[in-house]
Amino acid sequence: MAVNSPLPVAADLKPVAGIEIGFAQAGIKKPNRKDVLVMRLAEGATVAGVFTLNRFCAAPVQVSKANLAAVTNGAAPIRALVVNTGNANAGTGETGLANAQATCAEVARLLGCEAGQVLPFSTGVILEQLPIAKIVAGLPEAVANLTPDNWFNAAEAIMTTDTQPKAASRTVTIGGHTVTMTGISKGAGMIKPNMATMLGYLAFDAKVAQPVLDQLVKYAADRSFNSITIDGDTSTNDSFMLIATGAGSLEIKEASGAEYEALRDAVTDISRNLAQQIIRDGEGATKFITITVEQGRTLEECRKIAYAIAHSPLVKTAFFASDPNLGRILAAVGYAGVDDLDVTKLDLYLDDVLVAQAGGRNPDYQEADGQRVMKQAEILVRVTLGRGDASATVWTCDLSHDYVSINADYRS
Amino acid sequence: MAVNSPLPVAADLKPVAGIEIGFAQAGIKKPNRKDVLVMRLAEGATVAGVFTLNRFCAAPVQVSKANLAAVTNGAAPIRALVVNTGNANAGTGETGLANAQATCAEVARLLGCEAGQVLPFSTGVILEQLPIAKIVAGLPEAVANLTPDNWFNAAEAIMTTDTQPKAASRTVTIGGHTVTMTGISKGAGMIKPNMATMLGYLAFDAKVAQPVLDQLVKYAADRSFNSITIDGDTSTNDSFMLIATGAGSLEIKEASGAEYEALRDAVTDISRNLAQQIIRDGEGATKFITITVEQGRTLEECRKIAYAIAHSPLVKTAFFASDPNLGRILAAVGYAGVDDLDVTKLDLYLDDVLVAQAGGRNPDYQEADGQRVMKQAEILVRVTLGRGDASATVWTCDLSHDYVSINADYRS
Repeated sequence: MAVNSPLPVAADLKPVAGIEIGFAQAGIKKPNRKDVLVMRLAEGATVAGVFTLNRFCAAPVQVSKANLAAVTNGAAPIRALVVNTGNANAGTGETGLANAQATCAEVARLLGCEAGQVLPFSTGVILEQLPIAKIVAGLPEAVANLTPDNWFNAAEAIMTTDTQPKAASRTVTIGGHTVTMTGISKGAGMIKPNMATMLGYLAFDAKVAQPVLDQLVKYAADRSFNSITIDGDTSTNDSFMLIATGAGSLEIKEASGAEYEALRDAVTDISRNLAQQIIRDGEGATKFITITVEQGRTLEECRKIAYAIAHSPLVKTAFFASDPNLGRILAAVGYAGVDDLDVTKLDLYLDDVLVAQAGGRNPDYQEADGQRVMKQAEILVRVTLGRGDASATVWTCDLSHDYVSINADYRS
Repeated sequence: MAVNSPLPVAADLKPVAGIEIGFAQAGIKKPNRKDVLVMRLAEGATVAGVFTLNRFCAAPVQVSKANLAAVTNGAAPIRALVVNTGNANAGTGETGLANAQATCAEVARLLGCEAGQVLPFSTGVILEQLPIAKIVAGLPEAVANLTPDNWFNAAEAIMTTDTQPKAASRTVTIGGHTVTMTGISKGAGMIKPNMATMLGYLAFDAKVAQPVLDQLVKYAADRSFNSITIDGDTSTNDSFMLIATGAGSLEIKEASGAEYEALRDAVTDISRNLAQQIIRDGEGATKFITITVEQGRTLEECRKIAYAIAHSPLVKTAFFASDPNLGRILAAVGYAGVDDLDVTKLDLYLDDVLVAQAGGRNPDYQEADGQRVMKQAEILVRVTLGRGDASATVWTCDLSHDYVSINADYRS
């Protein structure tokens, strides 16, 4: 059960001019479920992405990075993306790379472009070879049903153990131009059967120069998909792709100016929404936790402390129990690795409740107040360091019995 | 239920000449349980310690560090240690420091030494002031029953939520001299009611110069108490103290030579045993896991990878389930933060089973073999990096439903 996350409504997911979506049931791991997704992009579209830093990055991640780099170096633009669930094609060596290339080649053949113009993505079990024959057999069906209004099906097609599809859509007006944005995401932690991957795809119909889009995707990812954590386990396949179809009237040529900033902020906002849907659907999650660390010297130290709190099993189990066991949060701050931190300058708030002041218990703090906040489904943890003006925010969920159950079950 | 950890037998815990132990029931948090421990040291004893790096380190940690530093700078030697359970005296500000000092002053008054010659230690609930009156009232009882053969009572007196006392004793012969070593430890993760602290005390009857003991305690701690993890949460009060009573005939003046190395290795071995007893009694632990990373360029990168595996909730739940879901281990290696790691050089073994070879699945690997090892109560995970000759070993336990239950319960 996702935390305060209403099911997206298909009718609310606006088509984005310049991108068509098709899907198929290829029976990669299980029958009778959508497991292959194809996105076809109009001419003039630009694509940029961020990928997992895991050293065991999957074959499709390696191919997608190489194909995007080639475009930057003057190769023909990206015309399609292909996603499969049921198999991550990770830890699969040369055969895995060949299978990812073969998937791109088949999509290219069906769409009439070059294999290098296709970006492949996979999610599912690792250390097993991709069933390439099933994927190749399924692709014609996906290409045959390419339409602009398949976003809800796309959100369903990339689900693994997600309990619900994740999608969002917005229309913004920038400099008199209407820009339509629609995106999907998936991931619920790294879970049974092996590892669920965080995937995010966001398309909008403005025309954006490649270097500008490269900068924009990093900006948005740092403030959305790179600021969430469920269990701290980084997948081998994590990817977030930003697609500017160029089919609309807005054109952005430089990463500056009011129009760029308006687009940047709109993209970041919807990216954050897509990322937060993943946390709300985190495995076993019963609480949605926002952790903000303020008044730090650097962004890095604020993120260190926010993640130390977000990853502490003790803090996460206390949230699950609605137990205002707040020494655990202070202890996590203390071991976050900020060696010169002066804890006597530190305050801790739960929502509006001042729990700790100058590194000690706030004399006016009543446990009943902490209890009231801890019982909420959504909780804000705010730490002020009193040593600078940097800040960082991370979103996470609690650690419940269901987390252990989900991850301790045998792979099916 | 501790994993393969027999209850220590009082009769097996040998008295160490030059140290006497007394305990009391001071009713600090609960009635009718030992909660105050006093250790009196003979003249000529030297003491060295390592302490938590948590920035929220507790008042007694601050006082103990200051008193040890004073001795190094020529102050009178340490003559006593005092430990209380039920309250950690952490996050307690100036009042907490004054209470730690007052505890030392009362012990000093009863034993006829200076307050600066006493080292205080606390474990239990944090963010609450130490009930100093109860401790002062209990100390005479502890001093009245000081005897050399109270080691088993000492092990019981420092327990918090440990399911059993932890202690070990050895006699070694070094250069014709008999050296008797006895130690105790406690800690089971950082747990209800707030945070359990890792405490370790090891005494032996050789005479060791202060600078040599300072070096020895770091050497032993790095290979024992600093190489274990249950949930990655570092307490505010963790301390490991090494006591050389000087009452025996062996004397070590320099940190070199065969006698020093024999003593160093014996101290390290019993320290490792005391540390491993903590993991075997880890909260909810059903498995004892040894993680060895070999062929690394540096000790640091080996430890980074070993801890990434040891802290991964996905790896820990897989151990709990006896599920050979070994992609999770490779993924943890991949995100450990060794940026230039070449995974194609990496092999993964479970005990003697070669699971992954050159970064991919070993073609000869049978899941039944992985399954057989995963079902064991004790499991060795061995990763070889193929890039150097550094290595590191970390000990941990699995993540079970009981871990969540223990930590999600309200504080009682």
